[in-house]
Amino acid sequence: MLYALDLVGVTVFAASGALAAMAANLDLLGILVLAAVTAIGGGTIRDLLLGRHPVFWIQDPSPLFVIVGAAFVTVACAQLLPVPRQALLIADALGLALFAVTGAQVAEDKGCSPLVVILMGTLTGSGGGVVRDVLTAQIPLLLRAEIYATAAIAGIVIYLMLRVVRVPSPIAMILGFVVVATTRLAAVAFDLRLPVLGLPE
Amino acid sequence: MLYALDLVGVTVFAASGALAAMAANLDLLGILVLAAVTAIGGGTIRDLLLGRHPVFWIQDPSPLFVIVGAAFVTVACAQLLPVPRQALLIADALGLALFAVTGAQVAEDKGCSPLVVILMGTLTGSGGGVVRDVLTAQIPLLLRAEIYATAAIAGIVIYLMLRVVRVPSPIAMILGFVVVATTRLAAVAFDLRLPVLGLPE
Amino acid sequence: MLYALDLVGVTVFAASGALAAMAANLDLLGILVLAAVTAIGGGTIRDLLLGRHPVFWIQDPSPLFVIVGAAFVTVACAQLLPVPRQALLIADALGLALFAVTGAQVAEDKGCSPLVVILMGTLTGSGGGVVRDVLTAQIPLLLRAEIYATAAIAGIVIYLMLRVVRVPSPIAMILGFVVVATTRLAAVAFDLRLPVLGLPE
Repeated sequence: MLYALDLVGVTVFAASGALAAMAANLDLLGILVLAAVTAIGGGTIRDLLLGRHPVFWIQDPSPLFVIVGAAFVTVACAQLLPVPRQALLIADALGLALFAVTGAQVAEDKGCSPLVVILMGTLTGSGGGVVRDVLTAQIPLLLRAEIYATAAIAGIVIYLMLRVVRVPSPIAMILGFVVVATTRLAAVAFDLRLPVLGLPE
Repeated sequence: MLYALDLVGVTVFAASGALAAMAANLDLLGILVLAAVTAIGGGTIRDLLLGRHPVFWIQDPSPLFVIVGAAFVTVACAQLLPVPRQALLIADALGLALFAVTGAQVAEDKGCSPLVVILMGTLTGSGGGVVRDVLTAQIPLLLRAEIYATAAIAGIVIYLMLRVVRVPSPIAMILGFVVVATTRLAAVAFDLRLPVLGLPE
Repeated sequence: MLYALDLVGVTVFAASGALAAMAANLDLLGILVLAAVTAIGGGTIRDLLLGRHPVFWIQDPSPLFVIVGAAFVTVACAQLLPVPRQALLIADALGLALFAVTGAQVAEDKGCSPLVVILMGTLTGSGGGVVRDVLTAQIPLLLRAEIYATAAIAGIVIYLMLRVVRVPSPIAMILGFVVVATTRLAAVAFDLRLPVLGLPE
C-alpha cells in the first residue's frame, strides 16, 4: 500500500512539475526534467537522510515510467483543455498529503522519535515542491503559501496519534492523508491563513 | 565538547532562520520549518558527504527540541523588543564560526587531507545559511556578504595550523571559532570587503 | 579514462563557476567557493544517489587542486584578456557533455535500467550548473537555455545505443560526449530552440 501511495504521489507531483514547466515556457525536455525532479525530490531526500541506498527510483525505475506518462498526459491535457488556474496548487496539495504520510510512516517504521517523524514527513512531502519552485526561481510554496507546512504537520500529528492508539498503519495513513489534503485544499479554496508574526517595523 | 558546540550552533542558526522567516512574513509553522532547515542544514550536508547514517538529528533528536525552543524564544523576543537590524547577521556569523570548526574537526578526525578539511568545514558552516537564503529567494550570504567564505577559511586554516603543532583539538576549535567569529563580526560591524575581481567591462 | 574525463569536467565547470562569480562581483574567496561547488556538484549528486561513500572528492582530493588551479587561471585570463560573452556557456556545455557521459557510464556499470541511466547522466551533467545558477539567484541554464536537457539526453541515448551493439565503453563515451557537446554548442552558436508547449493563455 505504501508503494501504491508513493506511485500516486509521484504522479501528481510530476503533473505539478509539468504545469510549472509550461508556465515557465520550457521546452518539452525541460518539462520532462522538471516533472521528474519534482516527483522524485521528496522521496530522494527521505532516502538520503535515512541512508537508504540506492534511492528508491534507482532500485525500482517504475516511478520514472509513471513520471514520463504523467508529464505527457498533463501536457496533452493542457493543449486540449483550458487548465484551471489552481491546477498546480491542487496537484501539489495531493502530492504533499501523500508524501507527508508515507514519509512519516517510513520514519516511524524505523523507530524515529515523534519530532523526527514530523520533520521527516514534512521534508518528504514538501521536498519535491521546493525543488520545483527553487529551479523556477520562486519562493517555495512551502514557505509562501498559506497553511502549507501547517497542513502537513497537522496530518502527521493525526497519523501519530492514531498509531499511539494502535490504529493499523494503512488506516492511519489514509486518515492522515485526508487531513493534510483537506486542510491544504481548503486553504487554497478559501484563501485561509494563519496570523503572521512579522518583525514590528 | 563537539556536541555542545553543535547544539549552540543549532541554536543560533535556528534563531537566524526564525529572523529570516519573520522578515519574509511567514506564518508560525513557516517560521518553525525555516528555523529547522537552517539549523540542520550544515550538519546534514556534512553527514551526507561523509556517509554518516543516519544523519545526526535522526540519530539523536535533541537538536530538534533546541530548534523549537530557539525559534519560540526568537519570535517572542521580536514581539517584545526592537530587533537590531543586524541581528540575523550576528546570529549567522556565530553559527558559521561554530559549524565551520566542528565540520573541520569531523573531517580532520576522519583523516581527510587539508584542502578537504577546509572545504568540508566551509560547507558545514555555510550550508544552513545557504538553505535559508535560497528558500527565501535571496543570493546566499556566503556569496553576497563581504568576507564570509574568507572568515570561515581563515578560521579553519588557523585550526589546522594549531593541530599541526599538536595543540589539543578542543583548544584549536575554540581558537578557530574565535578567528571566524571575530573576522565575520568585524566585517559586519565595519563593512570590510576584499577587492572584487569582476570582469573588466 | 573515466578519471581523466572527470578531471577535465571538473576543470571546465570550475571555470564556469569562476566566470559566474566574477559576473556577480564576488570577492576572491567567493570565486573559489562558487568554482568549487559548481565543479563538484554533479559528481557529488551522482555519488549521493548511488550511495558511494565517501563522495569522490573526499576519497581523492586531486579534483580540489584542479579546481583551485582552474579558478586562478580563469581569473587571471579575465584580467588580462577580454572574455567572450559566451565563455560561460561554452565552458558549461563542455562540462555538461563530460559529466553526462561519465555519469551515464557509472550508472550503466552498476546495472541500472536505461531510463535510470538517462536521468542519472542528466543529473550528473547538469547538477553543477544548477548549483551555480541557484546560488547566483538565476533560473538554471538546465531549464532556461535552449536545447540543454535535450543535448544531454541525446548524447546519453547515443551512448546507450552504442553499448547495446557492444561498442567498448571508452569509444561510446567519447562519441556520446561529442553528441552532447556539438548539440549544445550548436544551440549556443545558432540560437536553436525546440517548440515551446506553454499553457494556452
